[in-house]
Parts: sequence; C-alpha cells; structure tokens
Amino acid sequence: MTAAVTETIERAVAEIRFDHDGLVPAIAQQHDTGEILMVAWMNRDAVRASLAEGRACYWSRSRGKLWHKGETSGQIQLLRELRLDCDGDTVLLLVDQHGVACHTGRRSCFFHAWRDGGWVVISEPQISPDTLYPQRTG
Amino acid sequence: MTAAVTETIERAVAEIRFDHDGLVPAIAQQHDTGEILMVAWMNRDAVRASLAEGRACYWSRSRGKLWHKGETSGQIQLLRELRLDCDGDTVLLLVDQHGVACHTGRRSCFFHAWRDGGWVVISEPQISPDTLYPQRTG
Repeated sequence: MTAAVTETIERAVAEIRFDHDGLVPAIAQQHDTGEILMVAWMNRDAVRASLAEGRACYWSRSRGKLWHKGETSGQIQLLRELRLDCDGDTVLLLVDQHGVACHTGRRSCFFHAWRDGGWVVISEPQISPDTLYPQRTG
Repeated sequence: MTAAVTETIERAVAEIRFDHDGLVPAIAQQHDTGEILMVAWMNRDAVRASLAEGRACYWSRSRGKLWHKGETSGQIQLLRELRLDCDGDTVLLLVDQHGVACHTGRRSCFFHAWRDGGWVVISEPQISPDTLYPQRTG
C-alpha cells in the first residue's frame, strides 16, 4: 500500500472506539437485501485489512488471530461500505456475500426464531459444512 | 405473569449464551425494511422483560440498569420477533420502531459511512434531541 492509502485507513480506524480488549462488534449485512448475515468482532488490524483488501476480515476470539472471512470456505464477503454508529463502538459492514455466511452452511447465522414458546429453525443449509471445510476431521 | 408464561420465557433465556458479564449484543432491525436501527446489550432480565412486555428492553452499561427503550423519549420498539445466531451469543430483535432509534434524533444510529477517505454523515435528525429528552439540562 502507498503511504497515502495507509494514512487514509488510519483515519478510519482512529474514529472507532475499540473496547478494553481492542475489539468492536461488527455486523455483516447483505447490502441489497438488508439481510443480517452474521455478527463477529474486529480489532484495528481487522478493520485495516478489510479496508485495504475490500473484503471482510474479522478477529477470531476463539483462535486468537485475524480471520479473513472465506479463507477456508471460499465464502468471502466483498465490502461495499463500512458504517459506524453514533457512539463509535459498533461497526456495520454492508457486504456482498458469496455463498453462505454461516459455518452451518446457512445463508445467515440468525436462523433460530422464538415462535410460540420455542426456538424454531427457520432456514436450512444451502451447502454441507463438509463441503465448506473439507480438511476438518472432527 | 402466569407461571406458564414465566416458564416459557425461561426456556428462551436458557438457550442464550451470555458472556462473563452476563450480556449479549442485541441488534434491533426494522422488521419490514431491514434497516439496522441500533445495537445495544441485553442481560437475562432485559430478555425476560422484552418477551414479557413485547417491547425492546436493554441493559444500559453506562447507567448500570435496565433500559426500557423509549421510557424517556417515547420512541419505543415493538418486538415482532426474537432471533438467535448459530452459536447463541448474539440476538437479533425484529422490531417496529416508533419514531427514531438514535439519541441524536436520527432513525438509525449507523449514520456514519466511510466514503472517499472520510467519515460522512448520511442522514439527518428527524426530531431534535431537546424534544426527545426535555428534562435533560446539560
């Protein structure tokens, strides 16, 4: 990256209020349908990578490393626009999701709905997790 | 509430994975347009109150108390459906927002967009904060 691009990205990062762990919640929303795909976490480097590459990158709290969304599954999210809320501590990524967002093979992670006194599964996988993650053994 | 209603609500709460502070992020989305209105936090009592009352209730981390959305401003959120993500640690509230969600008087809190190397304000207040919160003095 050029110094100018780096400087520009740092201006974006500077306005985001990361928590004491250096993280903010990040919502991924399909840019044209409005569907909420998933919620993950971003640290400063994840924001930098997302803006530099034009693809969503998160911070995996479970793995303790940057998570370039789709790096294993191929189900990438092209970043259409980054938004920030009024108090600067939550970001919204308008994305173009290739394939599915959820590790279960569903388009959206929010597939449990509370209806008539029980949690109901409201969507089915579009692709098998075994296809998404062929190298996983367990 | 009847014992049956209480028991039903406890079944909803039991499936949500609250963090070590007893909280989960909660997204409020306008049920028909898909617009993301705000993100706040819920504890168990906020989920219970939301389901019991059919209106969004959050946990205010800054004030350390339940926050019945709209209790001061009148800008309530009728709860149309509660959803839960795949790993159970984020909730999505499909709501019918009365008036505006943001304390700035804007419909949505996500009014900053990163465009052409700068944060741009993409919506204007629909109502003055002074009208929303007349008793605030400073």
